Amino acid sequence: MSLYDFFGGFRRVVVGKELKSSSASEHKLSKLAALAMLSSDALSSVAYGTEQIVVVLMVAGAVAIWFSIPIAVCVLILLFSLVLSYRQIIRAYPGGGGAYRVSSENLGTGAGLVSGGALLVDYMLTVAVSVAAGAEAIISAFPVLEHHQVAISIFIIILITVLNLRGVRESAGFLIVPVYLFVVITFCMICFGFFKIATGQVPFHATAAVGTAIPAVGVALLLKSFSSGSASLTGVEAISNAVPFFKEPRAKNAAKTLTIMGLILGFFFFGITFLNYWYGIVPEEKMTVLAQVNREIFGGKNILFYIMQFATAMILAVAANTGFSAFPMLSFNLAKDKFMPHMFKERGARLGYSNGIITLAAGAAILVVMFHGKVESLIPLYSIGVFVPFTLSQSGMVVHWYRQNRRNFLLRSIPNIVGAIISATIVVIMIVFRLPHIWPFFVIMPIIIAIFLKIKKHYQNVAEQLRLREPKPSHIYAGNTVIVLIGNVTNVDLGAINYARSIGDYIVALHVDNSENPEKDAEVREEFSENFPDIRYVRVPATTSRSIIKPIVKSVKRISETSHKYNHTTTVLVPQFIPNKPWKRVLHNQSAVRIKYVLANYEDVIISSYNYHLKR
Amino acid sequence: MSLYDFFGGFRRVVVGKELKSSSASEHKLSKLAALAMLSSDALSSVAYGTEQIVVVLMVAGAVAIWFSIPIAVCVLILLFSLVLSYRQIIRAYPGGGGAYRVSSENLGTGAGLVSGGALLVDYMLTVAVSVAAGAEAIISAFPVLEHHQVAISIFIIILITVLNLRGVRESAGFLIVPVYLFVVITFCMICFGFFKIATGQVPFHATAAVGTAIPAVGVALLLKSFSSGSASLTGVEAISNAVPFFKEPRAKNAAKTLTIMGLILGFFFFGITFLNYWYGIVPEEKMTVLAQVNREIFGGKNILFYIMQFATAMILAVAANTGFSAFPMLSFNLAKDKFMPHMFKERGARLGYSNGIITLAAGAAILVVMFHGKVESLIPLYSIGVFVPFTLSQSGMVVHWYRQNRRNFLLRSIPNIVGAIISATIVVIMIVFRLPHIWPFFVIMPIIIAIFLKIKKHYQNVAEQLRLREPKPSHIYAGNTVIVLIGNVTNVDLGAINYARSIGDYIVALHVDNSENPEKDAEVREEFSENFPDIRYVRVPATTSRSIIKPIVKSVKRISETSHKYNHTTTVLVPQFIPNKPWKRVLHNQSAVRIKYVLANYEDVIISSYNYHLKR
Repeated sequence: MSLYDFFGGFRRVVVGKELKSSSASEHKLSKLAALAMLSSDALSSVAYGTEQIVVVLMVAGAVAIWFSIPIAVCVLILLFSLVLSYRQIIRAYPGGGGAYRVSSENLGTGAGLVSGGALLVDYMLTVAVSVAAGAEAIISAFPVLEHHQVAISIFIIILITVLNLRGVRESAGFLIVPVYLFVVITFCMICFGFFKIATGQVPFHATAAVGTAIPAVGVALLLKSFSSGSASLTGVEAISNAVPFFKEPRAKNAAKTLTIMGLILGFFFFGITFLNYWYGIVPEEKMTVLAQVNREIFGGKNILFYIMQFATAMILAVAANTGFSAFPMLSFNLAKDKFMPHMFKERGARLGYSNGIITLAAGAAILVVMFHGKVESLIPLYSIGVFVPFTLSQSGMVVHWYRQNRRNFLLRSIPNIVGAIISATIVVIMIVFRLPHIWPFFVIMPIIIAIFLKIKKHYQNVAEQLRLREPKPSHIYAGNTVIVLIGNVTNVDLGAINYARSIGDYIVALHVDNSENPEKDAEVREEFSENFPDIRYVRVPATTSRSIIKPIVKSVKRISETSHKYNHTTTVLVPQFIPNKPWKRVLHNQSAVRIKYVLANYEDVIISSYNYHLKR
Repeated sequence: MSLYDFFGGFRRVVVGKELKSSSASEHKLSKLAALAMLSSDALSSVAYGTEQIVVVLMVAGAVAIWFSIPIAVCVLILLFSLVLSYRQIIRAYPGGGGAYRVSSENLGTGAGLVSGGALLVDYMLTVAVSVAAGAEAIISAFPVLEHHQVAISIFIIILITVLNLRGVRESAGFLIVPVYLFVVITFCMICFGFFKIATGQVPFHATAAVGTAIPAVGVALLLKSFSSGSASLTGVEAISNAVPFFKEPRAKNAAKTLTIMGLILGFFFFGITFLNYWYGIVPEEKMTVLAQVNREIFGGKNILFYIMQFATAMILAVAANTGFSAFPMLSFNLAKDKFMPHMFKERGARLGYSNGIITLAAGAAILVVMFHGKVESLIPLYSIGVFVPFTLSQSGMVVHWYRQNRRNFLLRSIPNIVGAIISATIVVIMIVFRLPHIWPFFVIMPIIIAIFLKIKKHYQNVAEQLRLREPKPSHIYAGNTVIVLIGNVTNVDLGAINYARSIGDYIVALHVDNSENPEKDAEVREEFSENFPDIRYVRVPATTSRSIIKPIVKSVKRISETSHKYNHTTTVLVPQFIPNKPWKRVLHNQSAVRIKYVLANYEDVIISSYNYHLKR
């Protein structure tokens, strides 16, 4: 149960009416909807992918920008191999689960947990990077918002969280428009750009032509730039994790969707990188590279420019949404294997995994604040977090094919072998050249995995302790001692004592005197014995620091020990009153809650609440 | 109980060891300590008092600054009358309670609640204004911090809150140094300034000499300026509210302290205003008027300048602390009269009223954020909030003297009559000339008073309902029906059923099937009947939206109705297990908590927890 579930009324307004379990199967995604929901992460990467390559190259000066073309080609090759290998994962694992399942089944639990842990963090980064880039797209259009990057990002996160708590298909329905808007307008922009070049309207503007020798550009810089550019491929795995969301035939639909996505992504990424090169665009502080390309092609800040920026911001928001489908799915799988708390297994009222959704949103918001909403600070961590599980799942697939069919496994596993090698290479490049940016990854991962293992161990321990090995004879008690906590003598106490008589063989009324007034104290005692002459009345003083808890605990322990000797059970009955309106609860002393909380630590004492309901 | 009390361990580190009640009397303030703690609010007002007058006059140009001299004289007269009349309040009400007590006893509950409500808000404003002015003093010294006014203010609030949760005398001990540092350095600065003028080192620089005719200055402007300047007098009432904090003879010590404070305040206020006039200083954006006076007199940004700015910031922080002694005291008094929730009556572990302290800190923080930490935006609200209760308490005192001794009451009540008239005049000036800034006061006050009355009514209602009018005969039940909620059949359930047998005459095991797996369900049933062949087993399906709460509530209601017919009480026994470490609690399904929460709404059902303690 999440706290959020407590607020039923408020929830229904924000989240919508509860949905029945049986309607779960209706909430499946068509290919068109899936492309919107699950591909937006990858597609939206073009909003920052080119920029990340160019920003690294700028270290060697604007003339180095031509290297973005060969680097983009390498990224395309990587994309091609990843799409092929993820198609195979979808076919082999139609149940979803992605890198976590593939790694743990084929390479062992350790590898699985590394993948799972890395991806959990990474989905938070997906959300953080996407909303931050979305904020940058908005600021490129409206520079006046310059200092509100963090606020804009947090606002988008909240919006998406609410949408997701409302359930998966409704989100898709709502989000399908901006994704296709982006696809259409970006396609038009790129084609229009090429058309202008082809018709000679835009002369060659590049800072330096492809092939120009730039002595300042070394291998290290190129590899760094490549590793940054590969951030465009984050999100490619999302579809393989979400196969169960697809309509039947699931695997086939998912594989097709993946291929379509790969084609669109490749075209966009290369197109934008090329146009950027041709137009000779250099990164600016207040305007993203994509926004500059956009402005150049559409000829200024006109209506088309604003539509394109709007579409970019929107698809980035939808991309953040990818994390919101993937993270709860993954944490559900981890919780099913008892590596994460049970609460991540519970579906909310609208069939989404509410606890996963809320955890993700909180994590992403923290990341945005920590990194001041700066995309380029988040990218290195994002990449390492993606390419570690990429490597593991591709390697896992090689093992998978080998186990399935040892003879011609090589043929089937070629895409996976290539994928594993390229992914591993990127991981190595990141470690060698970007350690100052990615070291937190290597601090956080062992902690997460230790927590996973600790949780697993706990659940195993609990199951062991709770198991009834064989039918045990019941223990028959001789009776029950009831301790009734008494304040002043009121109708509440009267009702409580009547109830105590119905369950108790021996009743003790326990009164803690906190009044610092002996007269008041004597009065209570007298009134009590007048009403309940047959019930033992025990008075204990409050401690010198006015605590009523300690004397209660001490007396309860003493009485329960005696009761134990007589083979009695011990019940502590806490009389309390429930006001007729919830807001009135704050008006009353909550010490009953505190007493019950403390007493829960004592064994052999059963805690009972007598609730007296006020009418007015 | 406040949430903060829950976190015992953490609390002890931040707040300190618990203090015994008997040590309360040792925690009394000497005059020296009281001057530090209770006068800092008034004394620190000189940090912004002169500035508030000049800022208003600037509307008519820098030449109008000379009017600050006659206005300061009026403020001094007001100060004189307030000190006299508050000395009388201290003598008449040595129990403390200030404006709230005085108004309600002499003018009726309505006037008392207006005073009380106004002051509650005003103490929040005291804290907000003081920390904001403190932040300005810091920024005047270090202009690089310019954009962090809100952050600095919030930081100071947190610091003071922690100090106050540690208990009243310790705070005073800690805070006495900066107050006297401020008094000494300000005294030196003013004297040095006069000395320089007297020895002719500083020629007459004023923008215009006193008496110069300025046609642009009308009565309205002068009255506005006067009402702003009277903000320097906020805090004068603090001592009269806190008489019980003084060492014996309380009233005498308090009255003396008030007089000393009045003398210091008057000298500082007039001195700074005069020096400001003589030096011809004009308000600046990044530097307070006081900081400019300071810089001029000490001849630049030297070590003395920085000490003075530091002392100013420190005394303003201590001034904020005045609110932290006054607010909890006042809310205690309001809670004693049942106008505020009981929790404001409870002392924390360190003898401070923790809930009052935390409420105040939260309110002040919200005000700082809302008004962007700008002193001049907060001042008008602050003044109206002070002068309304000033007026009411002074009027109340007139009634008080009249009731005591009708014959020569006029003689005694002259200071109060004058005080009441001047205070009322300021209120009228504020309403006429500053309504655009103070209207929120007139929106918030009716709301607060309505809440006060609503709370009072509730407590009266409750007391009425709980009262046992005469000894009532006990109702004797025929027995007890126990409903045990069963999940899987484990050691927990075994223990719970054993307990149920000890209290119950009829036992029902209630199992909600949430497994969506008929085999698992049959297995549970079989295992149960194997272990408990004599106990009735009731299985209900979960709802289609997977809720287990609704079926439980429905079954419990049905069973308890039957049980009622047999004159049985009904107990719902919820078996749960308590992990051996608190952090492990999050790992378990908290549905038990939710079930108990929901069932508490149903009358005639007693809710019992069977806690099974895990060993590992």
